[in-house]
Amino acid sequence: MLNLRGFCGYMTSGGTEANIQALRAFRNLKGRGNFIAPESRHFSVDKASEVLGIEMKLAPLNDEYQMDASSLEDMIDDETIGIVALLGSTELGQIDPLEEISKIASEHEIPLHVDGAFGFFVVPFLYPDFRFPEYLSSISGDPHKMGMSVIPSGILLFSEKRFLEALRIETPYLTTKHQYSLPGTRPGASAAATYAVMEHLGKRGYRQIVEKCMRNTRALIELMSELGFHPAIEPKMNIVVFETGEVDRIREELMKRRWLISKSFRPLGMRFVIMPHVEEENLKLFVEDLKRIL
Amino acid sequence: MLNLRGFCGYMTSGGTEANIQALRAFRNLKGRGNFIAPESRHFSVDKASEVLGIEMKLAPLNDEYQMDASSLEDMIDDETIGIVALLGSTELGQIDPLEEISKIASEHEIPLHVDGAFGFFVVPFLYPDFRFPEYLSSISGDPHKMGMSVIPSGILLFSEKRFLEALRIETPYLTTKHQYSLPGTRPGASAAATYAVMEHLGKRGYRQIVEKCMRNTRALIELMSELGFHPAIEPKMNIVVFETGEVDRIREELMKRRWLISKSFRPLGMRFVIMPHVEEENLKLFVEDLKRIL
Repeated sequence: MLNLRGFCGYMTSGGTEANIQALRAFRNLKGRGNFIAPESRHFSVDKASEVLGIEMKLAPLNDEYQMDASSLEDMIDDETIGIVALLGSTELGQIDPLEEISKIASEHEIPLHVDGAFGFFVVPFLYPDFRFPEYLSSISGDPHKMGMSVIPSGILLFSEKRFLEALRIETPYLTTKHQYSLPGTRPGASAAATYAVMEHLGKRGYRQIVEKCMRNTRALIELMSELGFHPAIEPKMNIVVFETGEVDRIREELMKRRWLISKSFRPLGMRFVIMPHVEEENLKLFVEDLKRIL
Repeated sequence: MLNLRGFCGYMTSGGTEANIQALRAFRNLKGRGNFIAPESRHFSVDKASEVLGIEMKLAPLNDEYQMDASSLEDMIDDETIGIVALLGSTELGQIDPLEEISKIASEHEIPLHVDGAFGFFVVPFLYPDFRFPEYLSSISGDPHKMGMSVIPSGILLFSEKRFLEALRIETPYLTTKHQYSLPGTRPGASAAATYAVMEHLGKRGYRQIVEKCMRNTRALIELMSELGFHPAIEPKMNIVVFETGEVDRIREELMKRRWLISKSFRPLGMRFVIMPHVEEENLKLFVEDLKRIL
């Protein structure tokens, strides 16, 4: 299903560790400098920049809130050690134009990391024709999000062993001779749990889960449209934002009725992540209460 | 029991994260540069140095395998952003001369981190008169080691809020406004488990556990002395090394009899960590088998 033969990697504590480690590998291979990420990047990319001491240059977004790939040529310089692109932005679940970004990264021989914290366990099941671009250095995914596994559970995959080797630390007193992870002692149980869940659900199971989530995402859009709210973009996955300048007042009023909703900043609005435990009945009850406070 | 009033901090994934984060706080407050750690430091300190881009200067050890505090004055320079000292070295469970190191750090106004990954849940219960030095910036401890809690569970404490604030990252879309940890999503269950275990065991419980470990450490020393092996230093906690140049051959032979022992490099020898699950009976069986292969 995924065209990632020959990749290697390890299980992280989640997307933040994966983003730090991918950029650390790029930095250790090329030296300090800058990397490029879209304005829609997750805040863990900012954390990676600070921790690793690599300048972050933010690529603008297009009208669809994707990284504007046409800006890349001008942003890349001799000090650029990597590019981060998103398979599922935090706010909107948007997918950056991976093929186009990959082509530019390849021409400049700059490593490309795809942050798939949310999308890795969604996109291949919603869009079975989806393929990662040919030129790609690393990908992250979070089994503890849409992979239905326990916390902490993350995946980091590298296209070549040299990226993994760039993270190597000698471990003199352990039975293993070296370590690649950011933390030291880690729970093996969550790796076993993730394997068990993946074996149990299989492709068919994940497909059913994401389809249910998308059915409910569409149901929410329909219910919200009756109240005059419309999605900022056509959702690419089970994340949807309804633009409204009134989001703060709405949140406050909803809180009194024990509904806690998320706020998106760009675009400004009400943000929903329709996870597998959400039923259509919950959405109807929510929209009824929302109607009362408008 | 611990003289750490006014300290603040958070629960880490373990000692490695704590060491990285303490040094990251020091670096963010003082800027890039170097830090000083004893030659006996844990390898996670090397990892912190590489990840954060801070040079590590290694302080020599004295005859007792403690950091030689008298070397500090010469090692400190204008670029020194911190000092790391050990409450329980990995190989020997040795304690660095904290008072003396603290005095020097204080005179130079250099932050001091005490790596107590192993010793934090041992020393205060074995030596009830133990006090941390007055001048101290941060301390780490691992409930998932001698704290009898689950993996992942670590503690990082700072003497002043400014160290914690130096780790702050904004978290725009979460209900909390910022984050101090190195990973993002983390299991709350292990924090709850740690609290429950600490409540359940109490000071008395931890005291009984470390006393049992020390009884067995002494029992092992007695049994080993009959075979002509002697501890490299008088153990300060439940870690003991028996010096021998034959450690590799001994390990290999023991492996055939299904005993897996640890090797220490400085001093070269057989290394034992006598954890609470070890019974005197196990030690006797082990030493009988060891005798057969000598």
